[in-house]
Formats: sequence, C-alpha cells, structure tokens
Amino acid sequence: MKKPAWVIDKERARRAAAAETVWLFGLHAVRDALMNPARERLRLVVTKNAADRLADAIAASGMTPEIADPRRFDVPLAPESVHQGAALEARPLDWGGIGRCAEGGLAVLLDRVSDPHNVGAILRSAEVFGAVAVIAPARHSAPETGALAKSASGALERQPYLRVTNLADAMEKLRAMGYVLIGLAGEAPATLDQGLAQAKGRPVALVLGSEGPGLRERTRETCDVLVRIPFAGEFGSLNVSNAAAVALYAARQGADGA
Amino acid sequence: MKKPAWVIDKERARRAAAAETVWLFGLHAVRDALMNPARERLRLVVTKNAADRLADAIAASGMTPEIADPRRFDVPLAPESVHQGAALEARPLDWGGIGRCAEGGLAVLLDRVSDPHNVGAILRSAEVFGAVAVIAPARHSAPETGALAKSASGALERQPYLRVTNLADAMEKLRAMGYVLIGLAGEAPATLDQGLAQAKGRPVALVLGSEGPGLRERTRETCDVLVRIPFAGEFGSLNVSNAAAVALYAARQGADGA
Repeated sequence: MKKPAWVIDKERARRAAAAETVWLFGLHAVRDALMNPARERLRLVVTKNAADRLADAIAASGMTPEIADPRRFDVPLAPESVHQGAALEARPLDWGGIGRCAEGGLAVLLDRVSDPHNVGAILRSAEVFGAVAVIAPARHSAPETGALAKSASGALERQPYLRVTNLADAMEKLRAMGYVLIGLAGEAPATLDQGLAQAKGRPVALVLGSEGPGLRERTRETCDVLVRIPFAGEFGSLNVSNAAAVALYAARQGADGA
Repeated sequence: MKKPAWVIDKERARRAAAAETVWLFGLHAVRDALMNPARERLRLVVTKNAADRLADAIAASGMTPEIADPRRFDVPLAPESVHQGAALEARPLDWGGIGRCAEGGLAVLLDRVSDPHNVGAILRSAEVFGAVAVIAPARHSAPETGALAKSASGALERQPYLRVTNLADAMEKLRAMGYVLIGLAGEAPATLDQGLAQAKGRPVALVLGSEGPGLRERTRETCDVLVRIPFAGEFGSLNVSNAAAVALYAARQGADGA
C-alpha cells in the first residue's frame, strides 16, 4: 500500500530536522558545547592557538579537532562572526516536550521573537531567574544559531529552549498543568504586579511578543491576563529582552516575597 | 604672549570635538533625528524610495537631501549596517553638564560599557523608566554611533546621554546633590531591594560596569552601597542592559510603592 501524502511529509520533516546542524563559534560558546555531555557534536575546526586555549575541553569531549590556518578559516559562518579561531558543528539540543514544565515554576513563551540576540539574552535571563523553560514556535522564531549561542553566553547549553508546533496549543497545555498565562502588552490596563498578584502561588507563564507587532491575536486571547510594565513615559518602549528580564525579576520577587 | 601648552591642548580638544560627526542610518533613526530640533544636521543621503517615505520629516527639517542610487550608496557606514537607503551625518547631541541632574530623580552611570547595542538598549530603558540622565566616561564608552542609535530606537534623540571626563568625579558631584550611589556587583551581600530601601525617598544613581570586568576599583569605592540582583543560580549572569532594566524597574517600583 502506498503511504498517504501526509505521512510522507511528516517523515520528510523528521529527516530534515535530524539532518539540521548548527555551527557554534567563539571560544566561550565552543567550550561550553564541548563540556556539555548532552550536545551531539559533529565537527570541530580550530586554529592551533584556539586548540591550545581549549585543550582541556577538547580532551574532555574526546573529539579530534581539524586544525585550520587562521588566514583561511573555511567554515560556513556569517561574515561578521567573531569566531576567535574556534567553530563547532553540532546538532540542536533536544530538550524534549512541554511535559518538562509539569513540575511547575516559571516559564517564558516567545511569540515570534526572531532576533537571535534578543532570544540569546532572554535565555540568559531565564537561566538566572530559574525559569523551567523558554518556549517558542518552531517557525518564525530565532533558530539555535551561533549568534544566538554567543548572546546566550553559555545559557544555550543549560537553559531548556523548547520549540513547539503551535504556541496557543502549548499555552493550553500549560494552563491544564495549572499555569497562569500572563501576556505582556503595552496598552493593557493591569500592571505587571497586579497580574502576578492574581497568580498567587500558582506557576506563572510569561508571554512576550516581538517588537512592533507584539502578541498575535490568538496568543492574546489565550492569555489569562494581559499586563503592562508600568512607568512608561509618553515615548519609548522596552527592548523585548529587557521586558523579559523585568517580568522574570518581578515574578520571582512576587513568588518569594509574598 | 605665547599661550601655555595646556591652553593649546584644550583648544585643540574642543576643535576636535566640534569637528566630530556621526552617521545615523535606518529609516527610524534618521526620521527621529530629522524631527529633533536640537539635532545639528550636516548631510542627508537617501535613495528615491527612502526620500518618499521620509518626505514629511525631510520637509520638517528643511534639509535638501542628496539622492543616491540604491546600488551605490556611498556613505561611510560599517559594512553590515542596515541603512534602508537613509543616512544622516549629524553632530552628537549636546546635553550639557551634570548640572541637569540637580533636580533629582533617577540616574544611570555606566562604567566603560562599550557595546553600542547594550548602551542603546539602556538609553531606551532609561527613557521608559524616566531617568534624568545616563552618564558615561567620554573615553572607553560606546560612542554615539549609528549602531547605538538603531538599538536605542529613537531614545538617543530624547534621553540625555552625558559624557564626562571622570566617572568618579561625576559620582561625587551626584552625591553632593543628594544622590545615593548604588553599584551593581554580582558578589555583593546586599540585594537590590535592600540597597534601594536605604535610599528611601532620596534620588538614586544606579552604577553598572561592563560585562566581565564589572565596576572598576575606584568606581566601587565611590559607591554608597553595592548590591546584587537576587535569584541568581549557580551559573549565569544577566546581560548588562537586562540588569539595568531590572534595576531601573525596581528603583521606580520602590520610589512609587513605598
């Protein structure tokens, strides 16, 4: 019997995902990935100098590096990448599904935040404030690239970053687990603190949209409450990673202080 | 009578500063600078398309734009600059001296934060949370470049960004005006909230260092209190602009809530 088209499509998507690799670069990011036992590594390209500086991490990883001439560092990186003579081809980390949020705590959902520097900084903040996961749609989000890894400054190896097919479905699953879904929207009448007070002791999921368009309609409707970060003047808005840091801080402050 | 050497040096420095110009780029940044009456503008280079989109701002500015061919946009910008066909040569804004902080409020001091994206994001947050000024040493800080303007997303035109010769001297002047100087340092025993409670009603100056080195020795010693942002796990630290946003939020929260 011939396989139906949707099965073929699904299999093709799975093969494509398995084939997907990412080039991490820079001494810091490459060292962190070499030291991470969960990271599936494929190729390590380093200059002699970088090999010396990463000697302990390379030994710990068991990889055999390819030594490159610093003047001809032939690796597929974006032209402005500051690679410091170290690049590692690896597979994206597999953090499993949304089931890992069942323990409760604090989660962050990103609605089409596509700038890798912002997502990297958010992973960093999520780790600092002890978020159980950062969750983003598989499409229209910043992919796990070298630039994201660099902005994450090591957090990419440690902070769960889940990619889901549908963000609103993931939100419903979190709600079923007991989470209060708090969306950030500049024009919301409630303040961040008022929204967090509503959660009182329950796990919190903070939902942030991209700069400009903000939260999509269905994402907004799926939130339990929309809140704004107060004190905004006539002009200006926060960068999305700055808004995430403030919301994470306030959520931890509320949970621990109340 | 011959001028003494120090007078000649000072005059030369003043001439150099007056000659200093900055190329702002991107539709948003160029529009904001065209609309800012305080901005001294020198040259406007735009494609036909960008001229149409900026027509109202160009008319308001009274400038005569130079129309450029999109395939030959001959302006001295860094290669990866997303200029969108619009570039404006202008003088850095003159926000005057530290005297403008005398009215009190909330100030931010940056100790050698050199990344323009971070300084841009901090100017944005400073504007949102109503800071009276962001203050940085003239040397070893991110200069007012197009990249900074783009990250600041308009805030560069509106948020005072003062460059001082000596940061510790500026801190002493703020202290004399009644400010409590609160330095952020990861290893400080006091928390941000404890430090802010100490200020109770007095104006607050938040002092942040660059990532890695942190606050310099003399800067640390000049602070009234060092604080950390709590909840940090075993790993990780906040990006400096994220730390600034959290501290500004907490300072406003404390001032308005207590």
